[in-house]
Amino acid sequence: MDNAYIITIGDELLNGNTLDSNSTWLSKKLSFFGIKVIEKISIPDDINIIENCINNVLEKNCEFLFITGGLGPTHDDITKAAIKNVTNSKLEFDQDYYTELKLKFKDKGIKFLENNKSQAMVLSNCVKIENPIGSALGINFDMKGSKVFVFPGVPKEMQVMFEKKILPKYFNDNNKIVNNVTLLTAGLHESYIYNEIEKLILNFSNYVKVAFLPKYTGVNIRLSLLNNNINTEKMFDLENKIRTKLGNKIYGSDNETLEEKLGELLIENNLNIAIAESCTGGLLSKLITDVPGSSRYYYGSTIAYKNDIKIKHLNVAEESINKFGAVSSEVVEEMAIGVREKFKSDIGFSISGISGPEGGSKEKPVGLVCMALSTNEKTISKRFNFLPDRKMHRQISSNVAMNMIRIYILKNYD
Amino acid sequence: MDNAYIITIGDELLNGNTLDSNSTWLSKKLSFFGIKVIEKISIPDDINIIENCINNVLEKNCEFLFITGGLGPTHDDITKAAIKNVTNSKLEFDQDYYTELKLKFKDKGIKFLENNKSQAMVLSNCVKIENPIGSALGINFDMKGSKVFVFPGVPKEMQVMFEKKILPKYFNDNNKIVNNVTLLTAGLHESYIYNEIEKLILNFSNYVKVAFLPKYTGVNIRLSLLNNNINTEKMFDLENKIRTKLGNKIYGSDNETLEEKLGELLIENNLNIAIAESCTGGLLSKLITDVPGSSRYYYGSTIAYKNDIKIKHLNVAEESINKFGAVSSEVVEEMAIGVREKFKSDIGFSISGISGPEGGSKEKPVGLVCMALSTNEKTISKRFNFLPDRKMHRQISSNVAMNMIRIYILKNYD
Repeated sequence: MDNAYIITIGDELLNGNTLDSNSTWLSKKLSFFGIKVIEKISIPDDINIIENCINNVLEKNCEFLFITGGLGPTHDDITKAAIKNVTNSKLEFDQDYYTELKLKFKDKGIKFLENNKSQAMVLSNCVKIENPIGSALGINFDMKGSKVFVFPGVPKEMQVMFEKKILPKYFNDNNKIVNNVTLLTAGLHESYIYNEIEKLILNFSNYVKVAFLPKYTGVNIRLSLLNNNINTEKMFDLENKIRTKLGNKIYGSDNETLEEKLGELLIENNLNIAIAESCTGGLLSKLITDVPGSSRYYYGSTIAYKNDIKIKHLNVAEESINKFGAVSSEVVEEMAIGVREKFKSDIGFSISGISGPEGGSKEKPVGLVCMALSTNEKTISKRFNFLPDRKMHRQISSNVAMNMIRIYILKNYD
Repeated sequence: MDNAYIITIGDELLNGNTLDSNSTWLSKKLSFFGIKVIEKISIPDDINIIENCINNVLEKNCEFLFITGGLGPTHDDITKAAIKNVTNSKLEFDQDYYTELKLKFKDKGIKFLENNKSQAMVLSNCVKIENPIGSALGINFDMKGSKVFVFPGVPKEMQVMFEKKILPKYFNDNNKIVNNVTLLTAGLHESYIYNEIEKLILNFSNYVKVAFLPKYTGVNIRLSLLNNNINTEKMFDLENKIRTKLGNKIYGSDNETLEEKLGELLIENNLNIAIAESCTGGLLSKLITDVPGSSRYYYGSTIAYKNDIKIKHLNVAEESINKFGAVSSEVVEEMAIGVREKFKSDIGFSISGISGPEGGSKEKPVGLVCMALSTNEKTISKRFNFLPDRKMHRQISSNVAMNMIRIYILKNYD
C-alpha cells in the first residue's frame, strides 16, 4: 500500500484564521486509490521551517508528498523560494506563461499588475502544473523516491489542478479500490450502536477495523480492511450484517448526504415538499436545495421569523400563538398545513424552536424545538430538546427534520 | 513568546472523513494570549505512532502541547493507552467519577452500557480534566518542561473543557494581548488590494507582517506584529492607513462577520428587511439569521424555487417571467418589491440565478445571478457572473447580496 504525507503551509493555518480543508479533501481522494496518508503537518510561512519540514519528510521514503499553500502573488507567498532551495533550482522566466497569464486577467476583467509577473517565474529542476482556473502554477518534482506535488492554497484551484492534471497521469481509475465503507446513521447514540454491533465487530476483528464518528447528522460507522485488497468480501459481509441490525437508522453510506437520500426518496415516491421555517431561518431549505436537481421535488418555503407572517401568510390562528406560544405542537401543525395548502405541495413540513441565546423561559428553555409534517391524510408533530447553542441547535434541528421526513416516507409510502 | 504544538489524533482525520476544526479553534484561542502555534500534526489511531509523536514533540521544549481525539468509549479510542505509556502511569478506577457518569447518562435519558465503564478509569501520574457536557474525561500532565492537555475529539466538548477548566487556570484574561488584527474586505481582488497598499506595507515592513487571505466573502488582510508586545502603535497606525485607503470596502475586522455588520447597520438605521430567494434556496436568510438577535431587523423570507410561487406569492407578473426569464433584472425587481410589500418591511431584497449544474443556456449560462433591492423610494438591480460551481455560486451570491445591502444602506441612510 502506497503512503503519502501532506504538508499544508500558511500562518493562517496556525493562528486559527483558516480551517485546513485542503488536506482533508486530498486525503479522501487518495483513499479511493488505496493511498494511505500517514501524517499531516501544518507549518507557518517561514522559509527555513518549510525547507526543513520538506527535507525531513523526504527522509521517510514515502511514495507521495503533497504540499499546499504559499504560491500566490503577494510577498507572504514563499513556498516557491523554499522549493527552489530544496531542489537546488534556478528561477527562470516563462515567456509563454507570462503571455497566458495576461490573457487570464483580461478574460476575468481584472487589471494585470506587475506583482503578478512573479507568477511566471518557474523552477529549473521542476515541472510546472497548470492551473485551469487561477493564476498560480503548481510545482512537481521527484526526490529520494518520493513524487512531490505543490499546489496553491486556494481550495478550488488545488482541487481542479489535482483532478485535471494529476489524477489522469498518476492515478488510474482502474486502480480504484474499495478498502473501506462508511455507514451513516441518524437518531442513535454512539454507545447504543456500539452495544448493538459489538459482537459483530469482534467476530470480524481479524479482517475489518471499525471506527465510530459522531456527527451533527448522527454517528458514522467506518469499516476498513486491515489488509488492503484482500478479504473485501469479509468487509461487505460485515456491512450487510450491520445494515440488517440497524435497519432504517442507516440512511446512506460514504459520501451520501441525508439531503440527497431524502431527495431520492421524494423522487422515488413522486412526492414534493414545501417548508415553513422559524428558528432555523432558512437552513433546512438551504440543505434541501444543496442537492442539484432539487427543484424536481422542492417547491419553496416561507420563513416566518415574525409571528405576524405566521398568521397572515401561513394561516396560523392568532389565538393558537397566544394560547400555546409560537413554539408549540399546535402552532407547528398549523404552519405545516398552512404551507402545504398555500404552495399546493404533497408534504408540508414546519419547524419552530428557541435556538437562543435569548428567548427562553422556564417552561420553554433555549433548546426546545417543535416540528410537524402534514399531508392531506394526516398531520403529525414532534417535540425535542437539543443543545442550547444557537449554531448547533439550528444544525441538529435541520438534520433531525430531514430524518423525520425520511422515516415518515419510508413508513407511509415506500 | 510562548510556543505550542497541537497533535490531533484519529484515522478519520487522515482518510478525509473529518475536517480538523479542533486545532483551528485552539490556535485562535491561544493567539489571544500571545501563544504561537509552531506546528500542527495529525496522526492515526495507532498506539505506537501516538507514543512516538508525543515523545518527539516533548523533546522540542515547547511550553504547551495540546492533544485531541481518541478518548471515547469505543474500542478505537486508544489515546489514553498511549498517554499511559508516555507517563508511565497505572490505570485506576475512579469510583466517584463512575457514580457521576451513571448520573450523566440518566439525565440525558441514554441507557448506561458497560462499555462506558472504561471512561471511569484514570491515569495514576496524570490529573483528570472534567468534561461538563460529555462523558470522556480529559488528561493533564507536565513533562520535560511542557504542560500537556489531552481532550476528547468532539469539538463542543473540547471547547467547553478548554474554556471552563483550562483557560481560568492557565491563561489570565489580563494577559490577553493584541498582536494582530485582520481587516475584512468585500468586492476587491487580491492583486488589486496589494497594489493599492503595497507602499504602506513596505513602509511598515520592519514592524508589521501583512498577509492576504482570500475567502468567499472577499479578501482578509492580516496584520501581525513582528515583535510581540512592542510597536503596537505601529500596527494600529498601519491599520488606520489601510482603512483610509480602502474605505467602505472594509466591512469589519477580526471575528466580525458580514452578516453581523449588516445587522448592526440595520439596527443603527432602524431598518428592517424581508428576503425573496430563488437559487440560493434559503442560504441568504440562513446567514442573516445566524446572528443572535436578528429578529430585531429580519422579518422573514419567501423562497420561491417554483415560478408559480414567484407569481402567486411574490406578485411577479407571469408575463415578465415569460418575456425576460426567471433570472432577469425585471423579475428580481418585481420579487424585491413583492416581498417588501407582502411582509411590510423597509427593505425587500431578492436573488435569482443559475447555480447549476443544470439550467444554463447560451445567453444565460450557469453562474449568472441577478439581485434587486427595493425600498419605498426606489428599486435597483444588479447582474453578476460567478463561478459555475453550485456550492460556491450559492455562497458567493449570498455574500455579495449582503455586501450590496450594506453598501446601499451606507450610501443612502447612514
